[in-house]
Amino acid sequence: MSPERAVQQVLAQYVRAADSLNGEALSQLFITNGKVEIYDWNAGNPSLLFVLNGKDQIANAISNLMKPHPNKGWSHHTTHDPLITVEGNYAEMDAQFIRFDSIGAIRPENGWTVGTVGLIGSVKPTESGYYKPSLVLEDGTWKITTHRIYHDLTFVFPEQ
Amino acid sequence: MSPERAVQQVLAQYVRAADSLNGEALSQLFITNGKVEIYDWNAGNPSLLFVLNGKDQIANAISNLMKPHPNKGWSHHTTHDPLITVEGNYAEMDAQFIRFDSIGAIRPENGWTVGTVGLIGSVKPTESGYYKPSLVLEDGTWKITTHRIYHDLTFVFPEQ
Amino acid sequence: MSPERAVQQVLAQYVRAADSLNGEALSQLFITNGKVEIYDWNAGNPSLLFVLNGKDQIANAISNLMKPHPNKGWSHHTTHDPLITVEGNYAEMDAQFIRFDSIGAIRPENGWTVGTVGLIGSVKPTESGYYKPSLVLEDGTWKITTHRIYHDLTFVFPEQ
Repeated sequence: MSPERAVQQVLAQYVRAADSLNGEALSQLFITNGKVEIYDWNAGNPSLLFVLNGKDQIANAISNLMKPHPNKGWSHHTTHDPLITVEGNYAEMDAQFIRFDSIGAIRPENGWTVGTVGLIGSVKPTESGYYKPSLVLEDGTWKITTHRIYHDLTFVFPEQ
Repeated sequence: MSPERAVQQVLAQYVRAADSLNGEALSQLFITNGKVEIYDWNAGNPSLLFVLNGKDQIANAISNLMKPHPNKGWSHHTTHDPLITVEGNYAEMDAQFIRFDSIGAIRPENGWTVGTVGLIGSVKPTESGYYKPSLVLEDGTWKITTHRIYHDLTFVFPEQ
Repeated sequence: MSPERAVQQVLAQYVRAADSLNGEALSQLFITNGKVEIYDWNAGNPSLLFVLNGKDQIANAISNLMKPHPNKGWSHHTTHDPLITVEGNYAEMDAQFIRFDSIGAIRPENGWTVGTVGLIGSVKPTESGYYKPSLVLEDGTWKITTHRIYHDLTFVFPEQ
């Protein structure tokens, strides 16, 4: 497998872990003292909002601070149009992301309304921006050193 | 072309055939006794809903059982973040999918309302889930042996 | 980097330039007398709408004729499921595209409503279709000779 594809698959595993709200799996994609930097994209004039430092903070944020999926709900963090540069054991990636939230309809107690047929529920885009991780090849495996997330939407903190 | 990209392009051809409602083209991507298994994703606890067995059943389902596009309507089954493993003549793929349905506006008999300009119509996400096909290299061409479709949305059958 | 990935990254740079409304950067991805052909997809029976001829027309269309982003607004032209054929110094690509428009909420003068928390704003799909560029390898760099854009939505011109 080419190094570019191997790098791209790290991000593919990252979004699988994020959608499963599996902080442990997600943090395993980082080096021990890896970081996540979260930015406001601000239409191309980004500003840093906060940083998660080290695997434990990263795992905790995903497993405990993200909103759980509702009943029959799921998310898809999808990534697009990667630009990947590999130099020796170091790599940089720049990808677009769109998050979708889906929810499958729950069968009503008295059954479906007459005529209901096919795939029932909703799929909606809920977040967008860029992922710009840096990676290093460590014992044959690409690991994220710093993951940068740029959110188009406005991040509002409690009591702000 | 790398085997991983060749495998990825089979799925790219699959979604083109699905969007064209071309069951014949789509079934050609499978081995003769290929299968499609359709699952309810059920937030990560999937259950099998039904199976299409062999090229004929697959071709028929796409060409005759899928809802035709409305006037100036089209669909885009898009796939994302593939995880691909190739071992010799066998490959496994795991990709996210989002389906969009678009419809271009039809010019009103009396012409467009004053001020109407640009791209007019709508694009909406309508389905999501995962595609997890298994493939085999047959006479130099990657073919799908079993295609697994996991739907986030709830599949309701007539009279259910 | 494989030629297929290099070709794919040209389209990745194209969408970055389009989303930044940077006509100069976008036109640099074309040969000097490159062209953009815009088509109505028309559910698989496409018709040519208009052509941009040469780098200057292309740069001007992006920088001056596209609608500017609103305050805290951004776009993501995302591409999917590329089919790429490379023969020597020539390449053909066929990709799906979906455009999303996002807008981050602006903090109200009197602050956020109590309970507002998380990512606030909206992300919506606004365009879809296919990109089918032809490319040539020129001094070691893949450049677009003709870029074909097929829009699902109906393109309405002023005073039409």
